[in-house]
Amino acid sequence: MTRTVLESKTKTVTIGFDEPFCVIGERINPTGRKKLAAELEAGDFSTVEKDALEQVACGAMVLDVNAGVVYNSNPNPNETEPPLMTKVIELVQGLVDVPLCIDSSVPAALEAGLAAAEGRPLLNSVTGEEERLELVLPLVKKYNVPVVAISNDDTGISEDPDVRFAVAKKIVERAADFGIPAHDIVVDPLVMPVGAMATAGQQVFALVRRLREELGVNTTCGASNISFGLPNRHGINAAFLPMAIGAGMTSAIMNPVRQVEMEAIKAANLLMNHDPHGAEWIAFSRILDAVKEGATFPEAAKASAAAGAGRGGRRRRRA
Amino acid sequence: MTRTVLESKTKTVTIGFDEPFCVIGERINPTGRKKLAAELEAGDFSTVEKDALEQVACGAMVLDVNAGVVYNSNPNPNETEPPLMTKVIELVQGLVDVPLCIDSSVPAALEAGLAAAEGRPLLNSVTGEEERLELVLPLVKKYNVPVVAISNDDTGISEDPDVRFAVAKKIVERAADFGIPAHDIVVDPLVMPVGAMATAGQQVFALVRRLREELGVNTTCGASNISFGLPNRHGINAAFLPMAIGAGMTSAIMNPVRQVEMEAIKAANLLMNHDPHGAEWIAFSRILDAVKEGATFPEAAKASAAAGAGRGGRRRRRA
Repeated sequence: MTRTVLESKTKTVTIGFDEPFCVIGERINPTGRKKLAAELEAGDFSTVEKDALEQVACGAMVLDVNAGVVYNSNPNPNETEPPLMTKVIELVQGLVDVPLCIDSSVPAALEAGLAAAEGRPLLNSVTGEEERLELVLPLVKKYNVPVVAISNDDTGISEDPDVRFAVAKKIVERAADFGIPAHDIVVDPLVMPVGAMATAGQQVFALVRRLREELGVNTTCGASNISFGLPNRHGINAAFLPMAIGAGMTSAIMNPVRQVEMEAIKAANLLMNHDPHGAEWIAFSRILDAVKEGATFPEAAKASAAAGAGRGGRRRRRA
Repeated sequence: MTRTVLESKTKTVTIGFDEPFCVIGERINPTGRKKLAAELEAGDFSTVEKDALEQVACGAMVLDVNAGVVYNSNPNPNETEPPLMTKVIELVQGLVDVPLCIDSSVPAALEAGLAAAEGRPLLNSVTGEEERLELVLPLVKKYNVPVVAISNDDTGISEDPDVRFAVAKKIVERAADFGIPAHDIVVDPLVMPVGAMATAGQQVFALVRRLREELGVNTTCGASNISFGLPNRHGINAAFLPMAIGAGMTSAIMNPVRQVEMEAIKAANLLMNHDPHGAEWIAFSRILDAVKEGATFPEAAKASAAAGAGRGGRRRRRA
């Protein structure tokens, strides 16, 4: 049974076929967040702190950290991103005790993150592009960490799921050449917007099954891509996630501060028999009840996390 | 490709692997509804009228009709239920033009319903019980209608999904002896409460796949059973339905007046590529928007059904 083991200083999170779905919080990422980018360039980390605490309270089991700010004062990310990655990782792991996902397209920033992270982080990401394989896989091997493998290559992102499967297979094989086992590869089969490609959902479900059955790998995705451009996106995401989980998807990089998506995941865990005695569902229901009484979801989740001896106890047993 | 064809006087609804999920409205049923039962005994059909119109406006494609009232004045349902079934069916098909699902444990009421229903109704139900097979299958053959096959037999409801599969197989084989084709059998694999049986969800998903792949039959279920006894049931139902649809479930007998469940089904149809150009999702999103502005879901759905030339037009094309 495939198990991808992540660690923080004291906690272990396992992504696996027989584990609760792994929610990787996506918020600490300045891409598309101009205000956050400006704050980071100015040395203001208050939003990062808020996002770290809030995401974990809402149920993130891993936090993605992306420091991809293009500085106004220095447009060379190879110079600016590595020290910022180090800074953000040190800050985040001082605040919360969950494993991190080090997210960058700048290899030096990936290495800076690997040096700064405690435990066993997830590296995000390698692709099937030759240059990327040659730069990232040695880091994966050197630091003995798992890696997200995105199924595009030098020809771009194929709309043909068979090609995306073949790219994933190539990455798994190339990793094996470096001595990296398949259980340390978490494949992102790439989720297309269903509004632009009507078969996008079916493609993902079929690909996840194949990746699991034929390659034996865990999977992840940027879940909200599925609903891009459509109205009432959260309703689509909240159906997509259970369907993907039913097909065998084992993690997603997503916004855990959204109630409907988190509710869908908690319910799917229960339905997959990944929630012993329904304890997680019942605890989450108390948060839903507080929301019905007027609290926001993050407020209710934070109050529950602060007050709930039960939830704290359960987490400790996991570590 | 398995297609189970239902008809009203003028409309055709197809339950099938490549069709939108078929929502069978469950509300017209006095079981567990004391007030409705008392109304029906008193000859008051106002709730039935409201339930018929509201369910269709909310998206029911078929209406289940159950007339199982135990009269205070006459405790023999063999005498009271058949004429009441006739009366309710005539009333409902005078109000709405969707196929009906004739639901009774009294064979004479099933036959009364078959005589009264226009078009090609769905008969609900046969089981694997010998007496029931011998009573119901001749009716199915005589009236050339499809039938719901519930996978329990004379030994009761097995907790073993292999036994439930075997019961379904027996019913399909027995039906074949009567000349009834598999595509006219809609199997209910029986949904257990996940709060009582932790494997209940996985059982259903696996059974639906087997029923589809090995017997080639459509499937249905009483969807809300899955969440019985648990808090925030609608959240569980709203994850269960997309997961069941992803596994291949093609219909459910359910309450279509609940927004979250209907939203999950509309999103799942989109993700299964059973919603060309997302037209259904976009129309449903307008109802969700009206709910956000303060309308109740049935109010918003009724207003949309009354006003929506687009929706009316689409329905006509289907007929």
